[in-house]
Amino acid sequence: MNPRGVFAPIPTPFDDDERVDIARLRAALARWLTTPLTGLVVLGSNGEAVFLDELESDRVIATAREATPSGCPLIAGTGRESTQATVRASRRAAELGADAVIVRTPGFFRTQMTDDVLVRHYSIVADASPVPVLLYNFTAVTGVDLSPAAVARLARHPNVIGMKESGGDIGKIAQLVDTTPESFAVLAGSATTFYAALCLGAAGGVLAIASLVPEACVRLYEAAIVGRHDEARSRQRQLIPLARLLGPVYGVAGLKAALNSAGCDVGIPRGPLVPLPDTATMAVRDVLARFDEISLVPR
Amino acid sequence: MNPRGVFAPIPTPFDDDERVDIARLRAALARWLTTPLTGLVVLGSNGEAVFLDELESDRVIATAREATPSGCPLIAGTGRESTQATVRASRRAAELGADAVIVRTPGFFRTQMTDDVLVRHYSIVADASPVPVLLYNFTAVTGVDLSPAAVARLARHPNVIGMKESGGDIGKIAQLVDTTPESFAVLAGSATTFYAALCLGAAGGVLAIASLVPEACVRLYEAAIVGRHDEARSRQRQLIPLARLLGPVYGVAGLKAALNSAGCDVGIPRGPLVPLPDTATMAVRDVLARFDEISLVPR
Amino acid sequence: MNPRGVFAPIPTPFDDDERVDIARLRAALARWLTTPLTGLVVLGSNGEAVFLDELESDRVIATAREATPSGCPLIAGTGRESTQATVRASRRAAELGADAVIVRTPGFFRTQMTDDVLVRHYSIVADASPVPVLLYNFTAVTGVDLSPAAVARLARHPNVIGMKESGGDIGKIAQLVDTTPESFAVLAGSATTFYAALCLGAAGGVLAIASLVPEACVRLYEAAIVGRHDEARSRQRQLIPLARLLGPVYGVAGLKAALNSAGCDVGIPRGPLVPLPDTATMAVRDVLARFDEISLVPR
Amino acid sequence: MNPRGVFAPIPTPFDDDERVDIARLRAALARWLTTPLTGLVVLGSNGEAVFLDELESDRVIATAREATPSGCPLIAGTGRESTQATVRASRRAAELGADAVIVRTPGFFRTQMTDDVLVRHYSIVADASPVPVLLYNFTAVTGVDLSPAAVARLARHPNVIGMKESGGDIGKIAQLVDTTPESFAVLAGSATTFYAALCLGAAGGVLAIASLVPEACVRLYEAAIVGRHDEARSRQRQLIPLARLLGPVYGVAGLKAALNSAGCDVGIPRGPLVPLPDTATMAVRDVLARFDEISLVPR
Repeated sequence: MNPRGVFAPIPTPFDDDERVDIARLRAALARWLTTPLTGLVVLGSNGEAVFLDELESDRVIATAREATPSGCPLIAGTGRESTQATVRASRRAAELGADAVIVRTPGFFRTQMTDDVLVRHYSIVADASPVPVLLYNFTAVTGVDLSPAAVARLARHPNVIGMKESGGDIGKIAQLVDTTPESFAVLAGSATTFYAALCLGAAGGVLAIASLVPEACVRLYEAAIVGRHDEARSRQRQLIPLARLLGPVYGVAGLKAALNSAGCDVGIPRGPLVPLPDTATMAVRDVLARFDEISLVPR
Repeated sequence: MNPRGVFAPIPTPFDDDERVDIARLRAALARWLTTPLTGLVVLGSNGEAVFLDELESDRVIATAREATPSGCPLIAGTGRESTQATVRASRRAAELGADAVIVRTPGFFRTQMTDDVLVRHYSIVADASPVPVLLYNFTAVTGVDLSPAAVARLARHPNVIGMKESGGDIGKIAQLVDTTPESFAVLAGSATTFYAALCLGAAGGVLAIASLVPEACVRLYEAAIVGRHDEARSRQRQLIPLARLLGPVYGVAGLKAALNSAGCDVGIPRGPLVPLPDTATMAVRDVLARFDEISLVPR
Repeated sequence: MNPRGVFAPIPTPFDDDERVDIARLRAALARWLTTPLTGLVVLGSNGEAVFLDELESDRVIATAREATPSGCPLIAGTGRESTQATVRASRRAAELGADAVIVRTPGFFRTQMTDDVLVRHYSIVADASPVPVLLYNFTAVTGVDLSPAAVARLARHPNVIGMKESGGDIGKIAQLVDTTPESFAVLAGSATTFYAALCLGAAGGVLAIASLVPEACVRLYEAAIVGRHDEARSRQRQLIPLARLLGPVYGVAGLKAALNSAGCDVGIPRGPLVPLPDTATMAVRDVLARFDEISLVPR
Repeated sequence: MNPRGVFAPIPTPFDDDERVDIARLRAALARWLTTPLTGLVVLGSNGEAVFLDELESDRVIATAREATPSGCPLIAGTGRESTQATVRASRRAAELGADAVIVRTPGFFRTQMTDDVLVRHYSIVADASPVPVLLYNFTAVTGVDLSPAAVARLARHPNVIGMKESGGDIGKIAQLVDTTPESFAVLAGSATTFYAALCLGAAGGVLAIASLVPEACVRLYEAAIVGRHDEARSRQRQLIPLARLLGPVYGVAGLKAALNSAGCDVGIPRGPLVPLPDTATMAVRDVLARFDEISLVPR
């Protein structure tokens, strides 16, 4: 398991009654597996993992594993608020065939999440997990910031192989690369910072829009890796308006509306989230129309 | 169910292996039921509800109901990130005998939590819940702020009977009282603002330290209600150092250490939280020593 | 100089070319001096002090002193970013007849503003100032929070007689009262928290809307002080919508539009601030119409 | 005036009585002018401009102009809180020979600083300034964020030639480059993001540490511009620990201590800032020792 390249954290399809829709999930997986993506992440933030119970989570992982050939890395989100629950979810994910787990920081008791507490939490999880662990820092959502110093300590654990950093502070990405071994993979979690992160030594990205425009993301990655910087910069600029719209502005509902518009049926989000309103969907379609790889379905 | 007075959101005892400890819970409940507290809240933030799975949650409610006479209001925290899961938890809590449920705002997708989204979420929950619903706003933890305008809309729902506001902004408390009907109970969620909230028309409080110093909290409430303002102010000042220490500074671990020091055995917190270090426990004991109702157990 | 009661931090009138308008200032002062206000503050935040140069500042103080009888306390804002400049401004204000100075925390280099740095800054100013000094904490504007611990240290200085706290956290007000001597006056800086602050032992308030509805503010103060809590609460509730509108929402431009609407001509704000748009002025007038003491001038 | 390359925002030397020290300034300027820096910025944030009165500001600009050959661009910070004062300062700077002015956003009334207000402010300044204007966004200090949309509007003004963006969000830098004409220079204001900003099309940087390690900054710039990305990345990594230490951690006092340690005597900061404590100076010296171009003076 070498987490270098472009990973898509895929959404979890729901039907009109907000139930996990396994048929839609299978169809969408079949589509993603024809793309040049390096691998898939299930049950990430954009997978609405916080809305799923443990049984639903297991079904999503099992379905994804079944559909995904063993050569294609499958990573499962298993972060929970309690350390014990995270350990149990990681063990189950491994049993169901995940190649690695990605564990976001607990955040409910954020004022208590010191470096020491987080290092202890991740060490217990990494000790117990049968598959490698990726750290996952998403301060905008959790209110917790996993510091470079804490990451440097955790990078020494043999079962901690990398990290997804979703913040936009490129200086932190540089510090993470600088204070961890070569073998530790720092992955950008924000498409707007992807090219800059690669310039500074990031190993790849886990990008929400990679499930929507995989070609554009992978071509950017390749251009940056081989040193075609003009191409990489121009591809990066093309991605930013889409990333801004589907990240901070419309969120999961926006991503689902975009995928539906592009012919990849992922249904609606689960409440309290609501489907994207029509006017917003039109705005999303306008941005999507700029991408060659997308064929918009008629409304 | 008339939520006026002083409610204690009780901690959930764990044993040394971090399992829910029903025996300790029963013993602690017996103790709290001898106090002048108006009622109890199980599975609140300080009950470490985010660390419990659904089965554990049910056992805590059932145990509390068994121990609590029907005259003593029992409120259960049933907020989950998804609307569906909140509905299911509320129905189960009602079946298990809770007199009301208290539902904190979802927060994971905070940028999407507009007034409309939150009103829709709570309306679905209130429609479905067999027992009355209390709103619960805790911005410091969830990153979401339930606005006075949204509360005013929800206060018109016949099954929404009140709200716990944990923020320290007394102007917001005044607005909440002012824009909701007399019958809607605004409850302070922060012991440092309790007296000021009562002055402005709050109906009572749901105060973490009420499980520790119930006498002091109830005496403050009574003094304020009958207009003994000098006494109320002086009792309020006495509570502040304790509330500051056990709220923002030491959190749940501090509250558990304090209860253990006062002879009410509630065990340790669940990981990633860690038991309070010894030096911090000494600081807590120093503040506790100022309360007549507390007899410190030897260390 | 005993800063107890209700103080109005008055706006600085500008003419249509944004010059300090001494004639308008004199006329407005004459009006304020017929009200039951305890005293006046010139060159506060709402006085647009940051827009005035040193000569303009001096003219405002001199004009106010000339108009204000010696029995009516006149306080001048003299906070500057540098310690030296604050000392010089305080000395000049004293020469020009100010009874006291009010000094907001420096904020430009906010990450360096530790307790020690702020205690040093205020101690140098208090040593040098010929008239008593009031501390002034306005975190929403400066990004700096003067802590209760720092205030407790400064309250021991014989020339530091009180503090204006503009934050809405009533728990902090209670701590400030609790950790300073009786003689140290804690003044609320936010009209939405005024009654609650008085309940907890505050000595009064420095309230932007006191220049607009002095009667309402002073009657609230008197009711709270003598223990007519029902009246105080009801007056407090009346003030909140006005305070919200003119504080966080419309700011100085809103206050000036409100005063102009009430027949007290204070002109326009200085750029980059712009006069309040017409629709917003209508909203302000709607709220003003609820106050008996206000006679709206025709538009 | 073409603001491409590496600019040093130089500190303002003070003597032991905190007076502007023109002799020290001249000596330091002579030193900076032997380096490969593209140009100098006086009266920036790190120049402690907020501590200087108008006369002191003028002397600093005049001294810098006298020392700086006409081929070396000299930029003066002229941002004030009021629009009028900013216009006046910009005119004086131009008279004193500044080649351009750099104007930070006003911030005191931050809640009122909408896009429209900021566009109006900068348009008035740009209309009036005899020399070209650079926008300057420093949200961490001002609390105001000049949005890409506002910048796009201002970039159409013929006298607005570029912008310094001090935030670390590389996605915003990319948007700024993308939504402004080729001729508009986006300059990084944070040394930790310098290389990434250049990758995304930034024209250069205004970097506090450029006054300390000009060689290292200019070599990074050249490597990035000609496409020696491995060298650029490695130079970027070398700069980060120094930039972190002298930016968010020790600030101006740290920069002055570092320059003094490197033999460039710039005296102490002005109060309320205090000289860097000895232990912190030792930490700074340790990081400085890693740079070839620095010869530490004995302590």
